[in-house]
Amino acid sequence: MSDDKYLQRGVSSGKEEVHDAVRKLAASEFSRAFCRVESDPSDSSRYLVLHADGAGTKSALAYAYWKETGNLDVWQGIATDAMVMNTDDMLCVGADNHIFVSSTIGRNKNLIPGKVIAAIIDGNMRFVEKMKKYGIDIHLSGGETADVGDLVRTIIVDATALGFVGKNRFISNNHIAAGDVVVGLSSSGQCEWEDSYNSGIGSNGLTSARHDMFSKIVAQKYPETFDASIENVAYIGKYKLTDVSPVKGIDMGSLVLSPTRTYLPLMKEVFEQMEGKIHGLVHCTGGGQFKTLKFINQLRVVKDNLFPIPPVFDLIMKSGTFPEEMYRTFNMGHRLEIFVNEKDAPAIISMAKNKGIDAQIIGYCLPSEVNAVELETPFGKFVKEEK
Amino acid sequence: MSDDKYLQRGVSSGKEEVHDAVRKLAASEFSRAFCRVESDPSDSSRYLVLHADGAGTKSALAYAYWKETGNLDVWQGIATDAMVMNTDDMLCVGADNHIFVSSTIGRNKNLIPGKVIAAIIDGNMRFVEKMKKYGIDIHLSGGETADVGDLVRTIIVDATALGFVGKNRFISNNHIAAGDVVVGLSSSGQCEWEDSYNSGIGSNGLTSARHDMFSKIVAQKYPETFDASIENVAYIGKYKLTDVSPVKGIDMGSLVLSPTRTYLPLMKEVFEQMEGKIHGLVHCTGGGQFKTLKFINQLRVVKDNLFPIPPVFDLIMKSGTFPEEMYRTFNMGHRLEIFVNEKDAPAIISMAKNKGIDAQIIGYCLPSEVNAVELETPFGKFVKEEK
Repeated sequence: MSDDKYLQRGVSSGKEEVHDAVRKLAASEFSRAFCRVESDPSDSSRYLVLHADGAGTKSALAYAYWKETGNLDVWQGIATDAMVMNTDDMLCVGADNHIFVSSTIGRNKNLIPGKVIAAIIDGNMRFVEKMKKYGIDIHLSGGETADVGDLVRTIIVDATALGFVGKNRFISNNHIAAGDVVVGLSSSGQCEWEDSYNSGIGSNGLTSARHDMFSKIVAQKYPETFDASIENVAYIGKYKLTDVSPVKGIDMGSLVLSPTRTYLPLMKEVFEQMEGKIHGLVHCTGGGQFKTLKFINQLRVVKDNLFPIPPVFDLIMKSGTFPEEMYRTFNMGHRLEIFVNEKDAPAIISMAKNKGIDAQIIGYCLPSEVNAVELETPFGKFVKEEK
Repeated sequence: MSDDKYLQRGVSSGKEEVHDAVRKLAASEFSRAFCRVESDPSDSSRYLVLHADGAGTKSALAYAYWKETGNLDVWQGIATDAMVMNTDDMLCVGADNHIFVSSTIGRNKNLIPGKVIAAIIDGNMRFVEKMKKYGIDIHLSGGETADVGDLVRTIIVDATALGFVGKNRFISNNHIAAGDVVVGLSSSGQCEWEDSYNSGIGSNGLTSARHDMFSKIVAQKYPETFDASIENVAYIGKYKLTDVSPVKGIDMGSLVLSPTRTYLPLMKEVFEQMEGKIHGLVHCTGGGQFKTLKFINQLRVVKDNLFPIPPVFDLIMKSGTFPEEMYRTFNMGHRLEIFVNEKDAPAIISMAKNKGIDAQIIGYCLPSEVNAVELETPFGKFVKEEK
């Protein structure tokens, strides 16, 4: 029943079909690295990382909220989402500075005026300014904004980023080993470079979150925010966009639209202070807490000390998603995992807390013939093994 | 009346509104270069070029044709379009080799199965293989395929490419000067690396071409290929997708879906043979034959010897577009312009013809206080001046 709902909506957390199609491309040299890296044709001492990702269907919710409230700031948030989905993937291979970002935006010009594009660009520029204070140089290289109303109902916001990483600093995830602990970095709260409370939602699972939480009123007022063929599973929740949320001063729409937190300034410091001590990094995006499975070798990662579940995920779950599906779709509390020796964990946790990011050892690695991720949750134990 | 049609469809050849929004980004050092270039953080002898473009609404037509005929090959063509719209922009600054390409694809999973994604990847791989024969190394770096049916009606296919160009080979267009001739490279015919006749359509103006040429039957059968709010101007032409075209063995759908020709192998040879002699390069994409205006300084470019109009453009025009609009939207016969001294033109023309690409001097540059492009066409003289 619940599975049906996802199938009908045309989303899946695992994207197996896409992975099958993509498998034809030449395999990457480092099969467990979080991002594909390429040899730099003119500098053999470094790799280059060309990476693509975007804000996904979060922009459909941003559109509805903007129409409802007139608040253009949500588009700055969408810019941040598209940006951070790239930068924070790339920092998992060690690329933490000198990043070039190109935007790819497709819009329905009849619904999306120039001021929305301007707000997205402002969002990118504000993010760049914030990172500059931490010595992180992100360069906006322009991109393409196409008027493609026959393809795009409202607006799609993607970005492609280019980064570089010295071979001596590259993190392949090949050094993740039995005995390592997993330090989790909280996805919610308010850290040093955030202007307000971050719900922790990130940019994954937004199709589910939007349709499960918000009511048919949204579908009726903004039919351009969903595929009419999925109407029976669209906006089946109970909330209006501007209903109060459990978090003081933030309405339901804003809670779900909370821009994805970047860990860049913290990880830049971690890389500097802990050189050679980081065994691996995983960004818990599509696939949620089970994403880890793709990046380990002959290990069982036991996550027995997860963060308390942030309110936004509690709301989504109560709107009708099975707990296991929640952990497969959302980060549920931490979006970045750092694999290190146990003795190195306290220094990282301390650096994180100094920047206003909660951090803790959320699990550990056991030797195992079959790769597996095991979650101990308030709803029981969930296990996924590699096939 | 005709202008209304374009406004209603939410497309414009000039994209002024987007340019206004983007103007806030830091200006490029070279204001007349065809692509923005960036300093390479680790190699001061070269620039890097990070560029984004895509197949645009051509994929809506590919979808309809694929559904109508079952022919998956159209998706290989769409892959080529997204690729060449990047590579051939980038060769205008001199980046002709060692190119990395990342794909950004958004699909409605309920309409676009995995075999379409596989065909797009095959198309990319075939293009890479073809270019390899000419010593051109294009590296597919993966990318992102997102299931975003609430945003995308069918499928949107974009690409972002990374290239490098030595500062000594960089073409800024600053050397385009009065007295230069303009060598045009034909967009149609069949060149050495093409498997069949190329109509020359490229990847611009496809919203107009599709709706003006094809009939309401397409709208009725495939309503997912257009925005319902523009129904009165959608598919107002007289042809069915599989009607015979004036070109033997090619139906109307295939004629308009003809994959964008790349000039890469030819231009690689031109760069090698004519080092230092190329004053400027313009890729006639959005803006058609008037695109040139953005890349000149105190000049009037007179194009008085344009190619005969290829059949596809003749068909589109006869479907109800004013001639001037045709030249503002489509390439009308040549898609690449090379600015050189008159004495250097014959060598380029000869190299082009050896590869099966028709080429000729299509115009020349006059000194002028006001930048202008002047077209002498079978329909009279059309002029656009810089404001």
